[in-house]
Amino acid sequence: MKLIIAIVQDKDSNRLSGELVKSNFRATKLASTGGFLRAGNTTFLIGVDDSQVESVMNVIRNSCKVREQLVTPVTPMSGTTDSYLPLPVEVQVGGATVFVLPVDRFEHF
Amino acid sequence: MKLIIAIVQDKDSNRLSGELVKSNFRATKLASTGGFLRAGNTTFLIGVDDSQVESVMNVIRNSCKVREQLVTPVTPMSGTTDSYLPLPVEVQVGGATVFVLPVDRFEHF
Amino acid sequence: MKLIIAIVQDKDSNRLSGELVKSNFRATKLASTGGFLRAGNTTFLIGVDDSQVESVMNVIRNSCKVREQLVTPVTPMSGTTDSYLPLPVEVQVGGATVFVLPVDRFEHF
Ligand code: NI
Ligand code: NI
Ligand code: NI
Repeated sequence: MKLIIAIVQDKDSNRLSGELVKSNFRATKLASTGGFLRAGNTTFLIGVDDSQVESVMNVIRNSCKVREQLVTPVTPMSGTTDSYLPLPVEVQVGGATVFVLPVDRFEHF
Repeated sequence: MKLIIAIVQDKDSNRLSGELVKSNFRATKLASTGGFLRAGNTTFLIGVDDSQVESVMNVIRNSCKVREQLVTPVTPMSGTTDSYLPLPVEVQVGGATVFVLPVDRFEHF
Repeated sequence: MKLIIAIVQDKDSNRLSGELVKSNFRATKLASTGGFLRAGNTTFLIGVDDSQVESVMNVIRNSCKVREQLVTPVTPMSGTTDSYLPLPVEVQVGGATVFVLPVDRFEHF
């Protein structure tokens, strides 16, 4: 038995939840913050047999992989300088930090 | 030293907190979601000596055991069809998922 | 690799976050409650190489150490008995509970 603790960006959290359910893995989710990003993230707790660790890792990798995304910067409101139009920029989103912990004992009451 | 991570339904959370205090165990609680249930649950972190694991397990088992509960389904509001009266149904509530993790080192500052 | 789980009082949480960033350690934060105190606390998850555990421990110790603080008790509102003036009292604040857990595997996607 292993306890997998995965910290993922909020924007990947729903997709990861859905993919874990599809693959029949159960996860408990905790709202979290910090790490690289100011933005909120989600900490998943997933308990699995040793033989399933690789499958869960694949689900996480596929659901949360780092990719580029176009983001249009928010500009301060301004009534006068309409000469400036913000252009979308590419930012990296996604990614996951994953710890696999040994479990001495697992119980389900 | 062990770290016990117990995930319990919100409705059992207060009872478990109280019983742990009574037995002189300290717990840190984290709001969590997911697992079997849409509903909210609570994740307890409890650090104990190896010799106390069984006692904590018993407290969790007794506070959170699965049992049947009568629930009256919520019906959509309706001014006209008062011919339908929802009957209470039995649902399973309670239960806990518990991981016991080895601890390399414990400090209390 | 180790996973350090540190539970600290909310009032020390910002200082600890700042000091960890200064020392180049990344932490994920979870809002938590309970333990000794009714008041809210924060649970930090910090993944580090074995060789860095002692450094992180020092940062936590320095940021969260128990100290005395003067607190003026809140008194019930009262229009008539202005003869009673609450005096500040010394209370202990701070402190941290820290678990160092072994990690079988660490991945960063
Ligand atoms: Ni169950
Ligand atoms: Ni203490
Ligand atoms: Ni990264």
